[in-house]
Amino acid sequence: MKITRIETIPYSIPFTKPLYFASGVVTSAEHVLVRVHTDEGLIGTADAPPRPYTYGETQASIAAAINDLFAPGLIGLSPLDRETAHAHMNRTVGNPVAKAAVDMALWDLVGLSLGVSVSQLLGGYTDRMRVAHMIGFSETDAMVADALRMRDQHGITSFKIKVGRHPIELDIQACLAVRDALGPQAELYIDGNRGWTAAESLRALHALDGVGLLFAEELCPADDVLGRRWLVQHSHLPIYADESVTTPAEVTREVLGGAATGISIKTARTGFTASQRVLNLCQGLGIEVVMGNQIDGQVGSLCTATFGAAFKATAGRPGELSNFLDMSNDLLAEPLAIEDGVLLLPQRPGIGIEIDEAKLDRYRQDR
Amino acid sequence: MKITRIETIPYSIPFTKPLYFASGVVTSAEHVLVRVHTDEGLIGTADAPPRPYTYGETQASIAAAINDLFAPGLIGLSPLDRETAHAHMNRTVGNPVAKAAVDMALWDLVGLSLGVSVSQLLGGYTDRMRVAHMIGFSETDAMVADALRMRDQHGITSFKIKVGRHPIELDIQACLAVRDALGPQAELYIDGNRGWTAAESLRALHALDGVGLLFAEELCPADDVLGRRWLVQHSHLPIYADESVTTPAEVTREVLGGAATGISIKTARTGFTASQRVLNLCQGLGIEVVMGNQIDGQVGSLCTATFGAAFKATAGRPGELSNFLDMSNDLLAEPLAIEDGVLLLPQRPGIGIEIDEAKLDRYRQDR
Repeated sequence: MKITRIETIPYSIPFTKPLYFASGVVTSAEHVLVRVHTDEGLIGTADAPPRPYTYGETQASIAAAINDLFAPGLIGLSPLDRETAHAHMNRTVGNPVAKAAVDMALWDLVGLSLGVSVSQLLGGYTDRMRVAHMIGFSETDAMVADALRMRDQHGITSFKIKVGRHPIELDIQACLAVRDALGPQAELYIDGNRGWTAAESLRALHALDGVGLLFAEELCPADDVLGRRWLVQHSHLPIYADESVTTPAEVTREVLGGAATGISIKTARTGFTASQRVLNLCQGLGIEVVMGNQIDGQVGSLCTATFGAAFKATAGRPGELSNFLDMSNDLLAEPLAIEDGVLLLPQRPGIGIEIDEAKLDRYRQDR
Repeated sequence: MKITRIETIPYSIPFTKPLYFASGVVTSAEHVLVRVHTDEGLIGTADAPPRPYTYGETQASIAAAINDLFAPGLIGLSPLDRETAHAHMNRTVGNPVAKAAVDMALWDLVGLSLGVSVSQLLGGYTDRMRVAHMIGFSETDAMVADALRMRDQHGITSFKIKVGRHPIELDIQACLAVRDALGPQAELYIDGNRGWTAAESLRALHALDGVGLLFAEELCPADDVLGRRWLVQHSHLPIYADESVTTPAEVTREVLGGAATGISIKTARTGFTASQRVLNLCQGLGIEVVMGNQIDGQVGSLCTATFGAAFKATAGRPGELSNFLDMSNDLLAEPLAIEDGVLLLPQRPGIGIEIDEAKLDRYRQDR
């Protein structure tokens, strides 16, 4: 089976509720659907969500990288030739989301052609993931209402609260209120999206002492080299790195530099192949991971769950899989469901992505 | 497809030429053939070579670990349930060769059942590996003759010379003679199997300066913590760790402890799953690897090549794949061949192991 062409389809789906966080706001999912076609008619599918404030990519840059730089070296390869495909793509620096989407579409083809689920191929640990929901900035009451709605409608009991606002008391108040509303059993952690200085971060962590957080993610700017080390040295909570660790080498630098005690893995930026490298690196270094969310739609969330469910180390704690619940629509023919706080993987070959062509026609921006 | 039972068959095949090295001698391959049976009739196969002087395992301990400790938790699983299988096996400490053989037999079943080669499943970089041959202790003339024979009969131009004898001049003389005989184009490196102190090692490396070695492997005892660091600090040559790095955590300790600058990966002790973890860890840490030989027969060498050919990082330099050339016979129905210094992978589903049952009957020790 040979790759014959790669389609990059820009599309836009509005959110019903915009997501506000320290490094930006997302009001609609303006992503690129990537489809890798083969001479046997099979099509591998994945999603590329541009995040300019994190990786510098746009819909246009993703389409150009795939069409102009990657495709000429990928056409003619077998989807199984992943090492060769990556060697070719890695001649281009950066563009992590574009590379990740191609990688996952190749894995999808491998699974489809062999008649096996990609999650099973990767490790096959389980067929489900517990879900953590991300609560964006809002008035405290609205944040509490969001958490309660997710708990009551979807059984979600793990929440990541966005922080990083000024004054920091805004966030402290919100975290205390969410804990009060959910009770002591709920799992809570926070994500600063680089919004605070190291000193603000530590002050906030002390003020949050009684909230019972599990860990805190990316509180300070990635380039605050010494500030981040100081924070890790002085924090009782594990400090997870996210935007600062987009490659295995960045993981090594942050962890060995003493600037992180845990790592967020996002298939949207490292696909399946490099996510496995990051996971194996973290396991070898002896640090924990969480499956993060790149404000994914259903296609991206399914990719995250596919990877997360495959390994014992990633299936062990809830993955961030619920952002799509705030989108007005999506592309899957059979929408994902979160019940009792759990997302079940579809029992189908490949990743299990089946695109509703009518929906794609409605939201695509290239016609 | 479910695992129904696991066979562990001890066998013994004499070497035509015993292999002498600093930590022992091998005069016959006394291994355990591992066969994982399924309810669909497919059989996954791998080889377990006990190395008591390295891992403490014996034929009896391997059979007992697999039959008594592992099998009860593996029977009923699908071969795709590798994370669950490992979670079960890892409740038992140590026994790396027993675990690795089970892991590879499961991968063999995955490939066989999906109709695809395991090397392609792992990464699919290439279908061949260049071969490095290991030259054991002997009179200098015999070591030179061994190298020339391998070059002339099999086109091998990369050699690992066993060192670690006393006085060190014995080894220096041998290395100089091999270089003289092979000329400047041949790739040479040395392996001390922990035979020297750090001071002896550095003295030897200085004396070998003109030989043009690529790297030196495991020159000092694994527990010479400070001596090994001192050697790495003072050596111009990269120092590879082998017996001291049988798990990802050991890799982290040796590399971050400054006691190693490269790592030998052996599928005989880390199978495919944990070998990928070690490889990804090394890539994330930014250090080089070599595919090593656990004095494997043809089954084991095929496993090494299956893994080594799958990834760009391992296919880039010759793997140690030729020890079976010194065995009087072997178990494969279609013997491996090394031509022009290259071992070609069989183009078959799974690992490509096909056992000659008559040969197995002849060499098995349990009847």
